[in-house]
Amino acid sequence: MVKKPVTGMKDILPREMEIRDYAIGLIKETYKKFGFTSVETPCVEHIENLSSKQGGENEKLIFKILKRGEKLRLEDAQSAADLVDGGLRYDLTVPLCRFYSNNSNELPSPFKALQMGNVWRADRPQKGRYRQFMQCDIDILGEPTNLAEIELILATSTLLGKLDFTNFTIRINDRRILRAMVDYAGFVPVAAPAAEDTEAESKAADTVDYDGIFITLDKMDKIGLDGVREELISAGNSEEVVDKYLDLFQKVTPDIAGIKFLKDTLGEFLSDEVADGLAFIIENVEASKEAEFKMAFDPTLVRGMSYYTGPIFEISMDEYGGSVGGGGRYDEMIGRFTGQATPACGFSIGFERIVMLLLERDYKVPGSAEKTAFMIEKNMPADKMAKILAIAKEKRAAGECINIVMMKKNKKFQKDQLTAEGYTEIVEYFADRDI
Amino acid sequence: MVKKPVTGMKDILPREMEIRDYAIGLIKETYKKFGFTSVETPCVEHIENLSSKQGGENEKLIFKILKRGEKLRLEDAQSAADLVDGGLRYDLTVPLCRFYSNNSNELPSPFKALQMGNVWRADRPQKGRYRQFMQCDIDILGEPTNLAEIELILATSTLLGKLDFTNFTIRINDRRILRAMVDYAGFVPVAAPAAEDTEAESKAADTVDYDGIFITLDKMDKIGLDGVREELISAGNSEEVVDKYLDLFQKVTPDIAGIKFLKDTLGEFLSDEVADGLAFIIENVEASKEAEFKMAFDPTLVRGMSYYTGPIFEISMDEYGGSVGGGGRYDEMIGRFTGQATPACGFSIGFERIVMLLLERDYKVPGSAEKTAFMIEKNMPADKMAKILAIAKEKRAAGECINIVMMKKNKKFQKDQLTAEGYTEIVEYFADRDI
Repeated sequence: MVKKPVTGMKDILPREMEIRDYAIGLIKETYKKFGFTSVETPCVEHIENLSSKQGGENEKLIFKILKRGEKLRLEDAQSAADLVDGGLRYDLTVPLCRFYSNNSNELPSPFKALQMGNVWRADRPQKGRYRQFMQCDIDILGEPTNLAEIELILATSTLLGKLDFTNFTIRINDRRILRAMVDYAGFVPVAAPAAEDTEAESKAADTVDYDGIFITLDKMDKIGLDGVREELISAGNSEEVVDKYLDLFQKVTPDIAGIKFLKDTLGEFLSDEVADGLAFIIENVEASKEAEFKMAFDPTLVRGMSYYTGPIFEISMDEYGGSVGGGGRYDEMIGRFTGQATPACGFSIGFERIVMLLLERDYKVPGSAEKTAFMIEKNMPADKMAKILAIAKEKRAAGECINIVMMKKNKKFQKDQLTAEGYTEIVEYFADRDI
Repeated sequence: MVKKPVTGMKDILPREMEIRDYAIGLIKETYKKFGFTSVETPCVEHIENLSSKQGGENEKLIFKILKRGEKLRLEDAQSAADLVDGGLRYDLTVPLCRFYSNNSNELPSPFKALQMGNVWRADRPQKGRYRQFMQCDIDILGEPTNLAEIELILATSTLLGKLDFTNFTIRINDRRILRAMVDYAGFVPVAAPAAEDTEAESKAADTVDYDGIFITLDKMDKIGLDGVREELISAGNSEEVVDKYLDLFQKVTPDIAGIKFLKDTLGEFLSDEVADGLAFIIENVEASKEAEFKMAFDPTLVRGMSYYTGPIFEISMDEYGGSVGGGGRYDEMIGRFTGQATPACGFSIGFERIVMLLLERDYKVPGSAEKTAFMIEKNMPADKMAKILAIAKEKRAAGECINIVMMKKNKKFQKDQLTAEGYTEIVEYFADRDI
């Protein structure tokens, strides 16, 4: 028998579980106040749905589940694909779209979904990243207006505030602004360089490579403006276009004035609605936020997934380098399941990172009950035992935590252990004394 | 894309999730008052551990996970076993034993574990039984005395009481009483009948077939005393022995007097400790129980798993035919992982059955917040929108649930839908009126 958990997954001990349980309770309580309702999908999903190109790189990381019984024909199998019909979900968004298409008749519109559940990705194991981790998503399905973005950001930031996070920033951008800036600069399709190991000639592209430009732009905080310039030019774009493009980033400010600047500058390339919508979101969140945090317009924010269609956002925290959550609008994804376009917008918090940050700062779960241990001498007569249990019953009913343990020979060690577990009071009961 | 969930698993809608979330919260709160602490193991477990014969029939129902990358050698695979290195856990007990053996250095002794998590079994799909379901187990590891059984039964029954279940019975027996009754009756090894499709002669057994006798005894409530008699005799046991055995069941009463009767009658076949221990458990639970329920001694209670070594128990509920939970002592299982015997005792409640019963009786989750919907006319100016959001912020901070939705053309339908969702108050906001 193997004692360690499977590669890349972990056992979770009581200390961490206390924080997780508390955070899960608080998340549900907070989001429900914003009108979200819990739903759940199976952890196992159809392999077809997981391989539908919605998941980007995550589709390479699927834990696949073997077909069962007669369906498994090892002798006829040409490849792994012939052996599997399911997989563990790698996110909660693809299953939510399936869920919505399967159950929309029974759901209100708009539908405000709260999902908390494990997802699995066979990533290379590394410190602090595991192959099973909890995701926590809120999504509003069927709401085309920016009310969705406002409510998602208010709910998420209120939650972080309740977990005592204050110095965070929610950066926001819009996929349509990203595209408009590229269009305004005048990027044209460029030939992709021929792959070295083929005879094929370099193929002329027939559309502008937006995603390629965004991937470079996304590195701004790492390689700086000069690095981005160099990379765009070596990709075959003209210096003139690239400089016109990057000039925008030097002039824009990370606020509503910045959005207004782009609205004025980009002209016909950007519809007024998009710029006004983004400003509307920031204004309303700033005016009615409960937590202490900043909203910032960030025209370099890209977000990896190509399914986003409108506003996108991400949470940055000073005490943690990376993102602790993000989301955006994905108006076209549900239509791929249902054939009927359904506006959708979601916000996911990095549950594991938040738990990690709370553990690091030695977070004390508020409102924990007083913990008392009853130590009972061996061979306690039944009548006295009943008395002790009656006392425990009363205290538990009154909300106290009472742990009853048998007294050990090394009482000192036992008491130290109980104290380390958080028992602030220890009561000893002896068989030959009155109770 | 496939809209339905995978075979045998289900999407969970808000109505059921509300009850599940409430039950999960109550379970954690209640069990923590008894000194239990949450732990979690990965849903994926080593295939070796899942195939270690601890799981009985469940081992045939494992969802197996394909090896990844270079480890997967389809061309060399002789059987499915060569393709898999993990599986979805079919219960929480096997993973708990691995967990304890992996982490015992960091855990107190005794260790009181609370686990809530999904398990998977590829059972034939049938009404009300799913291939993914939640289990909820409490276990006390490292406590040899009957204090463990008492605390487990008190905690579980207190929880059921808080969920408004009252007319239930916890039936209790002891594996050692089961064996002592067989020994007392004088059962001897009998030859197993030769399998029809082999040439092999019938093999003479060299030990009494306890498990076979228990499987028959377990049918008492279905086939009655006569049916059990017939089956035991056709299995090759003598009439005299079978009648001596069954005579015990006719004389024994379902209470402490019944235990005392067996203690007196079975004599040397049953150690006094076992009978006294069982009586001690019943007495103490009866004296200090918080919920309204009955304890009953049931000498026909068998419990399927062969790993039980001492007291076993099961919850019966009048409004539900089958069992809604059970457990017992399994003192030898952890030793198989660690090489060091560790007493262990657990109680598992049938979470899915309990949720089903609550749904059927249209259970109202207590203490739900008042739910108010704000309906907002389209094109609300930013300054008025901010005012509305400020009102929502205040009410949410005060504990209310406020759902903000855009007003639709068919306002009547929209209001009916919100009412059906539980919104008792609906406030309309218009763009051209003062807020």
